[in-house]
Amino acid sequence: MAEPTIASEQPQGADQRLIKGAKARASIARHAADVASVEGLNGVSIGRLATDLGISKSGIATLFGSKETLQLAAVKVAREVFIEQVVVPAMSEPRGMARLRALIEGWFAHVTDPVFPGGCFRVATLAEFDSRPGPVRDAIAEDQRDWLALLAKEIGRAQEQGHLGERGAEVIAFELEAVLNAANTARQLGNDQGLAMARRIVDDLLG
Amino acid sequence: MAEPTIASEQPQGADQRLIKGAKARASIARHAADVASVEGLNGVSIGRLATDLGISKSGIATLFGSKETLQLAAVKVAREVFIEQVVVPAMSEPRGMARLRALIEGWFAHVTDPVFPGGCFRVATLAEFDSRPGPVRDAIAEDQRDWLALLAKEIGRAQEQGHLGERGAEVIAFELEAVLNAANTARQLGNDQGLAMARRIVDDLLG
Repeated sequence: MAEPTIASEQPQGADQRLIKGAKARASIARHAADVASVEGLNGVSIGRLATDLGISKSGIATLFGSKETLQLAAVKVAREVFIEQVVVPAMSEPRGMARLRALIEGWFAHVTDPVFPGGCFRVATLAEFDSRPGPVRDAIAEDQRDWLALLAKEIGRAQEQGHLGERGAEVIAFELEAVLNAANTARQLGNDQGLAMARRIVDDLLG
Repeated sequence: MAEPTIASEQPQGADQRLIKGAKARASIARHAADVASVEGLNGVSIGRLATDLGISKSGIATLFGSKETLQLAAVKVAREVFIEQVVVPAMSEPRGMARLRALIEGWFAHVTDPVFPGGCFRVATLAEFDSRPGPVRDAIAEDQRDWLALLAKEIGRAQEQGHLGERGAEVIAFELEAVLNAANTARQLGNDQGLAMARRIVDDLLG
């Protein structure tokens, strides 16, 4: 999914077709992520997307080849959205506790005011695929590992600054993720009390 | 799904058919719960179960009527399995901390050595249906509420016995559930480290 190189002149011919193809691919993958957040990645079929988007099935098949490729593209685009929404804004904060707080705030916003109609993409698809070995599960699990590692790194820095006690940084990251995922489920169920409890638990964890 | 009344004499005729029907219904619902734990409740179709169990589609349709009825039967049977495996054994322990510990041990066993091939049924199906309003979501959410209420009741009793500090019992129940659900996901992903971290967090929470 590399961006096509855009020449300094007006693109023409093959270049133009490449750009058009990349744009179509991106918008199809984005819609696939929306569908998957509500109905699961299994709800993402070439036929379904063709109907939703008013594109021919053969057009989508040409761009993606298989349902699995389409599911992997949805995982990739959801990861990019999460990075853009949660990770990037926090990177302008000072390392350690300040950045960790910014990451958690962004994460809460991602859960309480979700970009995807079904809430957090990772929660929905991890529960769906955790018992189904294969490339899709691998991609979702890798995304989760990366996110937990990034959190643990910032928690470790915060601990060097004298925050968060002496528990292992990975353990704190694991617990934060457990609670944020439960907050996502509470939000999707319309359980405001659950959401408020998650907030309180996270505030207690961060001290 | 009331059990048919079994007469003291040998059942015959209509009675026998009722019993046979109830047995078939129970075994189909149980298989539906197995399938749902791996592939989600959306993977539970009359056609799929007919193929798996070597029964005619019309036979299953006669017993359940619709896919939704079948999904609701799977939720009910999974709830019964959880009660039998986790709740009932703990009830012989003294109220309060001892019973709470027994509930948590049973729950861990339910997650680490799962009855259902896809691990905890509630985690799998709650994430699948939390964004899809309707009777199936209502049934899963009610099951979750009942379980959290039962936990909170025992936590409250343990607090009266001087355990678990002064945080709200519902908040502690929410946090325990978040961590156990994360343990389930870790287990299904083959992430032993995650499972060990969940264990440590729960031990810390129980003190």
